Amino acid sequence: MNRASIDLNADLGEGFGRWQLTDDEQLLSVVTSANVACGFHAGDAVTMRKVCELAAAREVRIGAQVSYRDLAGFGRRSMDVPPDELAAEVAYQIGALEVFARAAGSRVAYVKPHGALYNRVVHDEAQAAAVVEGIRLTGERLPVLGLPGSALHAVAEKERLPVVAEAFADRAYTAEGTLVPRGEEDAVLSDPAAVVERSVSVARFGVVTSRCGRSVGVRARSLCLHGDTPGAVELAREVRGRLEHAGVRVEAFV
Amino acid sequence: MNRASIDLNADLGEGFGRWQLTDDEQLLSVVTSANVACGFHAGDAVTMRKVCELAAAREVRIGAQVSYRDLAGFGRRSMDVPPDELAAEVAYQIGALEVFARAAGSRVAYVKPHGALYNRVVHDEAQAAAVVEGIRLTGERLPVLGLPGSALHAVAEKERLPVVAEAFADRAYTAEGTLVPRGEEDAVLSDPAAVVERSVSVARFGVVTSRCGRSVGVRARSLCLHGDTPGAVELAREVRGRLEHAGVRVEAFV
Amino acid sequence: MNRASIDLNADLGEGFGRWQLTDDEQLLSVVTSANVACGFHAGDAVTMRKVCELAAAREVRIGAQVSYRDLAGFGRRSMDVPPDELAAEVAYQIGALEVFARAAGSRVAYVKPHGALYNRVVHDEAQAAAVVEGIRLTGERLPVLGLPGSALHAVAEKERLPVVAEAFADRAYTAEGTLVPRGEEDAVLSDPAAVVERSVSVARFGVVTSRCGRSVGVRARSLCLHGDTPGAVELAREVRGRLEHAGVRVEAFV
Amino acid sequence: MNRASIDLNADLGEGFGRWQLTDDEQLLSVVTSANVACGFHAGDAVTMRKVCELAAAREVRIGAQVSYRDLAGFGRRSMDVPPDELAAEVAYQIGALEVFARAAGSRVAYVKPHGALYNRVVHDEAQAAAVVEGIRLTGERLPVLGLPGSALHAVAEKERLPVVAEAFADRAYTAEGTLVPRGEEDAVLSDPAAVVERSVSVARFGVVTSRCGRSVGVRARSLCLHGDTPGAVELAREVRGRLEHAGVRVEAFV
Repeated sequence: MNRASIDLNADLGEGFGRWQLTDDEQLLSVVTSANVACGFHAGDAVTMRKVCELAAAREVRIGAQVSYRDLAGFGRRSMDVPPDELAAEVAYQIGALEVFARAAGSRVAYVKPHGALYNRVVHDEAQAAAVVEGIRLTGERLPVLGLPGSALHAVAEKERLPVVAEAFADRAYTAEGTLVPRGEEDAVLSDPAAVVERSVSVARFGVVTSRCGRSVGVRARSLCLHGDTPGAVELAREVRGRLEHAGVRVEAFV
Repeated sequence: MNRASIDLNADLGEGFGRWQLTDDEQLLSVVTSANVACGFHAGDAVTMRKVCELAAAREVRIGAQVSYRDLAGFGRRSMDVPPDELAAEVAYQIGALEVFARAAGSRVAYVKPHGALYNRVVHDEAQAAAVVEGIRLTGERLPVLGLPGSALHAVAEKERLPVVAEAFADRAYTAEGTLVPRGEEDAVLSDPAAVVERSVSVARFGVVTSRCGRSVGVRARSLCLHGDTPGAVELAREVRGRLEHAGVRVEAFV
Repeated sequence: MNRASIDLNADLGEGFGRWQLTDDEQLLSVVTSANVACGFHAGDAVTMRKVCELAAAREVRIGAQVSYRDLAGFGRRSMDVPPDELAAEVAYQIGALEVFARAAGSRVAYVKPHGALYNRVVHDEAQAAAVVEGIRLTGERLPVLGLPGSALHAVAEKERLPVVAEAFADRAYTAEGTLVPRGEEDAVLSDPAAVVERSVSVARFGVVTSRCGRSVGVRARSLCLHGDTPGAVELAREVRGRLEHAGVRVEAFV
Repeated sequence: MNRASIDLNADLGEGFGRWQLTDDEQLLSVVTSANVACGFHAGDAVTMRKVCELAAAREVRIGAQVSYRDLAGFGRRSMDVPPDELAAEVAYQIGALEVFARAAGSRVAYVKPHGALYNRVVHDEAQAAAVVEGIRLTGERLPVLGLPGSALHAVAEKERLPVVAEAFADRAYTAEGTLVPRGEEDAVLSDPAAVVERSVSVARFGVVTSRCGRSVGVRARSLCLHGDTPGAVELAREVRGRLEHAGVRVEAFV
């Protein structure tokens, strides 16, 4: 019998200097892939080093969570960055993280854009191509974690980079299987039970229940958990526990 | 017969975004080692990429010119950075540059601290050790370009990193063979003829004429040229021409 | 007889730390209004202070050249900054500049958005309203220098701020009297004679010759000169000389 | 009868963008003076605006908490900033805050250096003079909150700025009445009862019990509370309650 398997990813190392945001140590005991901030929206060098050490010790995969250069806006403000600048900035971030991943005995295993860049490369082909070009500059065929059907995934596939589809444990979906925009009501699932239910449903059946109650197919090899909300660690643990209890293998995609 | 040989190094890529400082393309036709700014005192990702491409095409060695995080002060303001922060920041900068060096078919071949950090690690053992620890994090035994007799070189040697001594073509020396501090009168040689004369003297005889007219031994495998003054490129060319005319082999130290 | 009069404005103080861009001292002997960078796209505190002193000494008006927070992109990358953030950042920049203007015996006399923000508030009403809200926070009814017909001017007028229309001495215009976008061919006039001719034509007759040779009415109380191109100072002097020779009074709008 | 009175000050608005540090709203219901971060070590424009509004509504005095430009190090790393740069940067910060203070119907009422700058100007006369010069640039004779006997206070008095001495509720003192350096053991009082006791003792008798058990005179018109530790708000409330119970008037110094 072929058991279902799923990867759990979360954003980590999103502090900066004096400021901390996520409980990296606890989250790393739950997730299988760590999207590590690389200094452009968050993530100072000390934090990057420490998260890589913790991740490597727990055999959690290290991914480069690349972003626009925007500390003040936490990378959440869409920016018209010319493609050559964006490509170089993506490569810069991956390279900086690679040092710490290697020092910890691991490697940067994948790339996931952050925040506004994540949303933008769903549709913006020029920026999507720039992100892929940035990855290409590293000389590694790094998998691209992102939204299935996104421009980013389309460009990555064209350039023969592996793509990994993710679903969101705590975001509402439309009847078409797309995410309800954050601005809208009920865009985020606040009921922990619903988040757990959703996670198991995605992992086992590739199905989510849309905002209007319909079952929609959602292809996903990874499930994104959020680490910056109160109770995030407990919820993540609960999700993982229920997945395992349901017979789902929780394992990294690479 | 054993011909003398010398490396010529200069700071490159010291612009940032809209601002440019050095004529990178011209300087790269003269020097054999390029100290490339890595984004902390200067050096945006696009510039880093371009300088690496130009350097690799000319077979100029690429060095990481690591700095305090201080764009506003161009890395010229000494900072009490705790060693763990400094080590991680040094590694971060080298890692970022390595991506562009590799993409251009080259590698980061050495490390040279910039500005206030350069001066500080002449004496400050804790920061010197942090710089060496930052290099160690990269997993490569990168040579450290710096002042002979500096704390940085002492720590590097203890940690079995290669050290490369440099002399300054355009700085005045004391009778003890140390640099005249920048604040003092006549600290910088303004006469091009004196700079050329000095360069040949260092390369051929390991000797400089001190401020007070005495000959002083100065051990140096590399000669630092400055690229951010008017006429810098012409002077650099003149130095190189005169060295070659005097039978000195101008070649990288690695 | 009613003589025509015109203001000449230029961007000044657009260096940052070690980097300088414009010849502030020379330009201040030509223009009547100085758009001073306030630290977000350029402009460190020392430069701001110095430019204010020079401007005040020459009785040149000081304007706050407010920008997105984007040193790396020189404020030229459009950003989706939420209105409350943008308003506060605009107020922050004006307040910072006001200190130096007052210390020099002058005042911030007007506001002009820079780069991508300038272009965005031509159409984006939410950001235009945020800029106006930022000005309102200062408690002063500061005039808004910008493009006639822009959303910024519309919002400013609704909020009873004075608006000042400007034309560009070196930009091509369409037959509809709008600017030819920078990306297009011939968007910038490279012929100094054409720039001078244009300047006089705007000041005396409120007319420009469009790209296709048609005369188009352009209402403008101020003329924008660019200071960051080679020969900028000489061209600015030439423009001013020709304006005065043509009987146009060159004087600040406030 | 002459009742003792004391001011309570705390650092506020020390978040940046996505990151928050202190419970500004709660602390503002306890303290009488708010040291507001101005963007150089912490404090984005939105936060500055909000803290000023909250402070003004509660009639809490607004002070400019000026710092080195060092977001990554939270202003805790001493920097060799040349005096002219430091003076201009201090003025810049005060000017930026003044906009929000005025918009809220208040004014910047005093200045207090933050972190490494605070410690440095205890002894460094050149930087102390630069801070005073920065204040002088604002054109206001703003009181300087700081350590009695510091170089900063000496320079400020020479320049006829009012000085306000502060004591620390939770820091250990030596037998000479100076602070036990943070690096040393027991430098910070961790027992809430001791903090409360100390506060009353300073306010009523101008006396602290030193680390070695001796009573030492400590002149202080203000008492500094820390807001960034767990339980900070509760402790601050307790301190204020006990002061009032002991008959001490808790009131701003200006």
